[in-house]
Amino acid sequence: MDNFQFFAPTKILFGENQIEALPQELSQLGKTVLLAYGGGSIKKNGIYQTVKSLLEEHSFQVIELAGIEPNPRVETVRKGAKLCHEHQVEVILAVGGGSTIDCAKAIAAAYYYDGDPWEFTKDRSLIKKALPVATVLTMAATGSEMNAGAVITNLATNEKLGTGAACMKPKVSVLDPTYTYSVPRYQTAAGSADMLSHLIENYFSPTTSATLQDHLAEGIMKTVIEYCPKALKVPEDYEARANLMWSSSLALNGLTGSGKAGSWSCHPIEHELSAYYDITHGIGLAIITPRWMEYVLNDQTVDKFVQFATNVWGIPYNKNKFEVAKKGIQALYDCFVSWGIPMTLPEVGIDQSQLKLMSEQAIQHSQLNRTAYVRLEAKDVEAILMNCF
Amino acid sequence: MDNFQFFAPTKILFGENQIEALPQELSQLGKTVLLAYGGGSIKKNGIYQTVKSLLEEHSFQVIELAGIEPNPRVETVRKGAKLCHEHQVEVILAVGGGSTIDCAKAIAAAYYYDGDPWEFTKDRSLIKKALPVATVLTMAATGSEMNAGAVITNLATNEKLGTGAACMKPKVSVLDPTYTYSVPRYQTAAGSADMLSHLIENYFSPTTSATLQDHLAEGIMKTVIEYCPKALKVPEDYEARANLMWSSSLALNGLTGSGKAGSWSCHPIEHELSAYYDITHGIGLAIITPRWMEYVLNDQTVDKFVQFATNVWGIPYNKNKFEVAKKGIQALYDCFVSWGIPMTLPEVGIDQSQLKLMSEQAIQHSQLNRTAYVRLEAKDVEAILMNCF
Repeated sequence: MDNFQFFAPTKILFGENQIEALPQELSQLGKTVLLAYGGGSIKKNGIYQTVKSLLEEHSFQVIELAGIEPNPRVETVRKGAKLCHEHQVEVILAVGGGSTIDCAKAIAAAYYYDGDPWEFTKDRSLIKKALPVATVLTMAATGSEMNAGAVITNLATNEKLGTGAACMKPKVSVLDPTYTYSVPRYQTAAGSADMLSHLIENYFSPTTSATLQDHLAEGIMKTVIEYCPKALKVPEDYEARANLMWSSSLALNGLTGSGKAGSWSCHPIEHELSAYYDITHGIGLAIITPRWMEYVLNDQTVDKFVQFATNVWGIPYNKNKFEVAKKGIQALYDCFVSWGIPMTLPEVGIDQSQLKLMSEQAIQHSQLNRTAYVRLEAKDVEAILMNCF
Repeated sequence: MDNFQFFAPTKILFGENQIEALPQELSQLGKTVLLAYGGGSIKKNGIYQTVKSLLEEHSFQVIELAGIEPNPRVETVRKGAKLCHEHQVEVILAVGGGSTIDCAKAIAAAYYYDGDPWEFTKDRSLIKKALPVATVLTMAATGSEMNAGAVITNLATNEKLGTGAACMKPKVSVLDPTYTYSVPRYQTAAGSADMLSHLIENYFSPTTSATLQDHLAEGIMKTVIEYCPKALKVPEDYEARANLMWSSSLALNGLTGSGKAGSWSCHPIEHELSAYYDITHGIGLAIITPRWMEYVLNDQTVDKFVQFATNVWGIPYNKNKFEVAKKGIQALYDCFVSWGIPMTLPEVGIDQSQLKLMSEQAIQHSQLNRTAYVRLEAKDVEAILMNCF
């Protein structure tokens, strides 16, 4: 196990109607609130009205930032920071999924940053201070509600990059599983694929002695695999939505990644697809992950893939390790298919015209060829992507 | 899954030589430090000298409280609080295992409490404020390094009670696995049994839908079961000590208990043994737990015991559920035996003279007959204890 710091100070208010505890928590952070949200689904399902009424009842001054995009843009970060300065905002309340929360966190950092927010998106060490952020989660997926990260897109340069700092961790997050009842099938599946990907990225690490972290990851994976189909079948299944929602936070709050060396593989590749084609992040990950697994399966990695197959998927062990490993990869692929995820790039509107460029950019923007589980060069990324056709 | 709040704000500095990061963290909490420790083992293994030198190098003013007992006494809490007032202490640094840390947390609360600390030990709602606490962990067991709880003993009244408040959670904890290399066999086994007990207490809950929490608990249990024998065999096995140490924190920081109803069963029973006979807590738990399991195994609980047997111990499922369940309980018993734990009460110096009294006190001091997994009256507790002879 490698040395690590673990720090997950976000207070989680989990369960039905936990929103009622929000005003008291929020009042400790400030009275002038930037209410940040996305495309308006929270107005359809009533969450907007609930939050707005609560804030007004408790005499908060509310400034709104609506229309945060999926794959949030740096332009929106700039706009949000400007609003915060104009209205002397003291706390940002993000109501939405990972994109909205990521954008809110970047705005919080931009508030105290003198230059342009794209600078600290490219170099997170520039972030020194941030406004406090609170969140009301409406989609189980990215884990942004309990971590320091934010992924911001610059369409002008076709770049989608991850940034983050400890000061950007939300102070409080409301996780009410009923708020995800109205999440559509496609987004429920995409969110669950995103969680599995976070777990897989940390699971396949050069560090072999972080057994506890591996077992925790296996437990969260098994939970997602059990409950995603239940939520797809009965969208108002509280138990399913609750297990998925808490899984999203724990899949990426440091629990499964702390103490493990190496850097991620599928996320940097997917970020290029999203940057060039603006596709749904979790879907891109689902398409890439099994192909990445097939590509990096070799004599050095096979034992880990056997562990994945047996502990996560319950595939019986036998001496033909590659057979067991391949059954695990196939199980993951079949799982995504059963969730209704389109499993090829053409199905999400991606042709082969930009593959080479995206592969080169993936290397450029990441540690893929330096610290990844299996080091990849541009030609490897291109081969993995070619297998997605 | 029941509604819950999860809040685990302790910053964990994990790994070899992480002590070097302590002065910087500590300086954010105060410059006058109460250095609290136990019977002197930290002087033998050199941890005392390391900490003391670091504090002096960084110009902290240090007041010492030595001699904190295993099963720490309320008298020591009073003495510590008095020291803090006399020297205007700003932060308490506990260097030791669970007993030392528990005592430090109680001193931190006593500092701001006008009455006698035994009052808030009996009624935790009286705790409103506490001095900041930092810890350097030297034994993997209680999880006190990352939670709000403290167990204090009053030998005058033969009472050992748990108290706690969010303000008592350590701000920062240093977890260096090498600091546990010198923990003797008996204490290593007792600490591991304590961890398993924490996980088992939360695992067997009336709430059946907290699947994620169950899977996390199973993962931590498997880790403890794998690594305790390795640490017993090779005390300086870093991987074993690291996995055990991080397991101790995660076994009782809210991860596996949040969202589950009910109250604990074996701890309230064991607390009476420790209060009357001052035995090692983890050993008492190991003796009681399999007997409690046998006693509460019935048609309502058998499915959970089957889950425990199959998911934790890998016992093959078959249609005779009671057979599978009993194999799981036997596996736990055999595990404790293999760790060298004496598995009867006479072996730890307890005869039958106080059984009735202790059983009545266990009911008095706990929720055993109201909210336990299977409700127990004094006669049930007595029967469970009788099975430990």
